[in-house]
Amino acid sequence: MNDPRDTQDSGTPGAPVRSGIPEHGRIPKYYAVKTRLETLLDELGEGGSLPTERDLAARFGVARETVRQAVRELLIQGRVRRKGRGTVVAGPKLEQPLSLVSYTEGVRRQGKVPGRSLIGLDRMPAGAELAQQLGIGQTDPVWHLERVLLADDERVGLESTYVSVDRFPHLERDFNPDSSFYAFLRDQLGVRFAAAEERIETVLATPREALLIGTPPALPMLLLNRVSRDTDGRPVERVRSLYRGDRFSFTTHLSGA
Amino acid sequence: MNDPRDTQDSGTPGAPVRSGIPEHGRIPKYYAVKTRLETLLDELGEGGSLPTERDLAARFGVARETVRQAVRELLIQGRVRRKGRGTVVAGPKLEQPLSLVSYTEGVRRQGKVPGRSLIGLDRMPAGAELAQQLGIGQTDPVWHLERVLLADDERVGLESTYVSVDRFPHLERDFNPDSSFYAFLRDQLGVRFAAAEERIETVLATPREALLIGTPPALPMLLLNRVSRDTDGRPVERVRSLYRGDRFSFTTHLSGA
Repeated sequence: MNDPRDTQDSGTPGAPVRSGIPEHGRIPKYYAVKTRLETLLDELGEGGSLPTERDLAARFGVARETVRQAVRELLIQGRVRRKGRGTVVAGPKLEQPLSLVSYTEGVRRQGKVPGRSLIGLDRMPAGAELAQQLGIGQTDPVWHLERVLLADDERVGLESTYVSVDRFPHLERDFNPDSSFYAFLRDQLGVRFAAAEERIETVLATPREALLIGTPPALPMLLLNRVSRDTDGRPVERVRSLYRGDRFSFTTHLSGA
Repeated sequence: MNDPRDTQDSGTPGAPVRSGIPEHGRIPKYYAVKTRLETLLDELGEGGSLPTERDLAARFGVARETVRQAVRELLIQGRVRRKGRGTVVAGPKLEQPLSLVSYTEGVRRQGKVPGRSLIGLDRMPAGAELAQQLGIGQTDPVWHLERVLLADDERVGLESTYVSVDRFPHLERDFNPDSSFYAFLRDQLGVRFAAAEERIETVLATPREALLIGTPPALPMLLLNRVSRDTDGRPVERVRSLYRGDRFSFTTHLSGA
């Protein structure tokens, strides 16, 4: 067991890349522990409980801090998750399509119950960037709808939607913030999305975001910025969606070389 | 200067979300320092040198460890980068299209010089997952082409390409590993990509990956997994691309509700 490669998923593509062992240079001790823990996670299966830090340290013959570092990386990667005072093997990441379907539909397709929890619905002046994106004036008012995204009651993301108040003057009155905004636009107002520009990147959660989503601070997140247009080509909304990096992946179908 | 919101980019959309200040609960000291540093970065402009940790600690009246934590997050986010023994303000992230165009073309469009540095070109048996993805047998041989991706001589990613040896028997002889694999397939073999399935997520660099790309270990990366098909619908390649999360964002155009 001195060569952590023994315990790697060497049958899968990418394994030589993922194996994590520098060809030259020392193998960090925590990384060797992490590799052995990954084998243990496979044996335990989803929902299985990890032994305590103390037990793992004894089993691997390392300091508890070394185990802690390995578990910290597994937490960030979403391979394990906290449950009560313990740590259990996590399920696979949710695969959300990069498409014009809403969060609601994407989550439902995976057999999870989507939900939202309102943080706030406020009016504010657009400012330069939003004005340009929404095709309105800089001092024109916009709605800022901020909601925590849920999947099976688990907090998985945070979404900010910005739309023109002139275009949607009665949002505060007519829209139920626990429901799908896309369904509201479609069913109540007849708005159809035809296209969107989206940018995806990885960012760190700020302390406020971590608090709202219930993640450790500085957890890597996936940030999606989108401007959606209706069938007339008019910009409808600017959305900033932050998803837990340990819980989500995004898929897309590319075509036309 | 006790309220870090004073120094936030409050005019930009998303600022209430990004402001990072929990509505209840303490503001972490390092985060207040980070907020003030971000204002300083804007003043310095791209390429500008940060004062030393010691100077910053004195300026903000905090411990050097607090400054270090703030700078560490700015490094991970790509707002600053190391240069020699110092730290300078980084440029914006590269925006790579999520499309069938190659890395080469994507980087060129942003006025950077794309490059690749060969790590290895090896034959290996496909195994179950690759066999299924490439439509070949599990014991059939595949090429594994591993290269570091460069932009203006900066190491920005690591790419593993897997193709069937039966389909491309003379890769080792015919393909120049410093050149575009897509251009080779197109110009030498007449292969045209028509479609691809792509999955994007955030992962931590392994020690080996960090070493090859020259990043700090555990830097959040963007991982893209792709299976590309030709105009006959046949799978051509499976690609695993790892991009520095502090240097890349990906953009896509969505259409058809």
